[in-house]
Amino acid sequence: MTSAPGSPGDVLTLISAGFATTRSDLARLTGLARSTIAQRVDALIERGLVEETESGESTGGRPPRQLRLHTEQHAFAGVDLGATHCRITLMDMSGEVLASCEDQLLIGDGPETVLAHVDGRLDRLLTEAGRPRAALRAIGMGVPGPVEYATGRPNNPPIMPGWNDYPIPEYFDGAAVLVDNDVNVMALGEQRNAFADTHHLLFVKVGTGIGCGIVAEGRLHRGAQGSAGDIGHIRVNGHDDAGCRCGNSACLEAVAGGAAVARRLTELGIAAETGADVVALVQAGNTQALRLVREAGRLIGEVLASLVNFFNPEVIVIGGALSRVHEHLLAGIRETVYRRSLPLATHHLSIVPSRMGINAAALGAGMLAIEHYLSPENVNRIVNA
Amino acid sequence: MTSAPGSPGDVLTLISAGFATTRSDLARLTGLARSTIAQRVDALIERGLVEETESGESTGGRPPRQLRLHTEQHAFAGVDLGATHCRITLMDMSGEVLASCEDQLLIGDGPETVLAHVDGRLDRLLTEAGRPRAALRAIGMGVPGPVEYATGRPNNPPIMPGWNDYPIPEYFDGAAVLVDNDVNVMALGEQRNAFADTHHLLFVKVGTGIGCGIVAEGRLHRGAQGSAGDIGHIRVNGHDDAGCRCGNSACLEAVAGGAAVARRLTELGIAAETGADVVALVQAGNTQALRLVREAGRLIGEVLASLVNFFNPEVIVIGGALSRVHEHLLAGIRETVYRRSLPLATHHLSIVPSRMGINAAALGAGMLAIEHYLSPENVNRIVNA
Repeated sequence: MTSAPGSPGDVLTLISAGFATTRSDLARLTGLARSTIAQRVDALIERGLVEETESGESTGGRPPRQLRLHTEQHAFAGVDLGATHCRITLMDMSGEVLASCEDQLLIGDGPETVLAHVDGRLDRLLTEAGRPRAALRAIGMGVPGPVEYATGRPNNPPIMPGWNDYPIPEYFDGAAVLVDNDVNVMALGEQRNAFADTHHLLFVKVGTGIGCGIVAEGRLHRGAQGSAGDIGHIRVNGHDDAGCRCGNSACLEAVAGGAAVARRLTELGIAAETGADVVALVQAGNTQALRLVREAGRLIGEVLASLVNFFNPEVIVIGGALSRVHEHLLAGIRETVYRRSLPLATHHLSIVPSRMGINAAALGAGMLAIEHYLSPENVNRIVNA
Repeated sequence: MTSAPGSPGDVLTLISAGFATTRSDLARLTGLARSTIAQRVDALIERGLVEETESGESTGGRPPRQLRLHTEQHAFAGVDLGATHCRITLMDMSGEVLASCEDQLLIGDGPETVLAHVDGRLDRLLTEAGRPRAALRAIGMGVPGPVEYATGRPNNPPIMPGWNDYPIPEYFDGAAVLVDNDVNVMALGEQRNAFADTHHLLFVKVGTGIGCGIVAEGRLHRGAQGSAGDIGHIRVNGHDDAGCRCGNSACLEAVAGGAAVARRLTELGIAAETGADVVALVQAGNTQALRLVREAGRLIGEVLASLVNFFNPEVIVIGGALSRVHEHLLAGIRETVYRRSLPLATHHLSIVPSRMGINAAALGAGMLAIEHYLSPENVNRIVNA
């Protein structure tokens, strides 16, 4: 029980989910007294969360006034920070995109530089959308490293020098800031936008490293310390000679990540440094690159086969840089998963490339912001403030 | 939104969770009109779900009447069916144990024989507890095989001949019947009774086979087809010569289950057939048995190391027949998990033997029954019937 039934937050949920479009609906659904409904609705209107129109269908006599989310007043941002990019999507309260932008930006420049850039872009996007800065109520942000979700502080992120324990939310005044690992917001962006009817989904990002976002019962599963989904360091069979930056050997990432595939190509005399180089080689028809990407898919599939038995997802989405050559990667993954997982778990399982592509993270970060803001607990806090 | 806020079911939840002990509490917490509260409470009292006493503390004037769950009228059963046993626990609505029994019973005798036995025992336990048969509102049941949870039908269970697709709930009149895999009810029994503050828990049963029950955010995670937790057929490193009954090789169960350890002892000239034989040998100080149990622990730990990275649990509970010699099994498991999992995920991780022991399954099955019966959706159905 996270909020009292019949609270303003619950009333707003009934409106935003489309269960109630009039005050009569609310009275019927909640059993609240008419006077209480009036108080609740008035408070929500006063805070700019709900608007009431005259445009209801007539059923004889005066048409009932319609309640709906007030999408004109507030704005929400989804920020996707990668190793070398920054994408921002500005949305209204219903998730409609108002404006967006994309820049090259080095996360290694440190939090002050990067967040100042984000802050400037937010001003520009708000101006573009015709909303004042004060309208920005919540910011969701995905970053390429582990984060303590409750505080929004990166937790020893290996590719984010200067960010360890930096209190990202404190940088932004006047808006709630939710910070999460990039793979988590990608999983949310994919599930909310492309697989809304799928309750159990894994999003696997195959880039330089390999990580996984987990949606269980429609919610992000972050685990006890927020480290759930860190599958890049799961051990794979028969590669004990492959050392990993974590100190162990035979980690999935050390044999099947973009950097590992590039290294193996280099060993074969084919110049490649990054996952992007591997993708370019595959697209140019290099047969060794093609073979190694498929082999990487098999190794990823070996790990996913275990996770399918354990978690029983409906959908596995493959994203990240290497998924740009997804036909070869997915062929390898599917080959192993369907051979090694239990029939009951694979019978209805789909393994598909990302549908939201490079927009998954910013969209998911934006949904994180909106869902936080519209949660009954937060709405009750706003109304009682 | 599964039930309207302020519904009778929500009112009951406020009472059962201890948030409300008077009608005034309910009015304050829900914002419902006094007359609506009176209707809700009267309906709950009429159905025997709530009782109202005169025993409140006086604050001057007439002491307020106290609301609480009416635990005298209803009864709930938790049934634990194993390959060779039947344990039943009869509980009241608060989870208090009223009576229990344990018998030898062969699941292989088929559903008619086994369920007739259960039915007879239920009558006896109800008589013992002084409650009529009609008081039995819900039965939770754990069975040693996969189950389609929504229908209560076993799904090709390998050690339950005659049970495939048998509609277990239809056997029992007048009570809701919830059927689940035994490992799932063990996980629930353990978490609800011994680890109530732990939101993310794995229960690993190491018997003849190996399975896992998953508690995520305090709820059982069954996955898309209900097959989540089936970890016995995850592949382990370097055992490709070990064939498994599933048709694959190197499955965890085929190298580390009780039957596999017994077989390896036999190969060494030490007679053993089952997990129980292995346990007896360890308890008698047989060093080969001890060594092989520890080695089984290491193999189980290898799989759990991957699942710790993926799921990030707070607690892993080890149960099942082999856990009776848990110091050796756990030593092997801990050795591998702490070496192979990521530090962030193991820092606060506990790996412990089952605290509820042989009672975990029946207690968990009983909780499944009570939680189903007291769910807002079910209470609303009862009140509106």
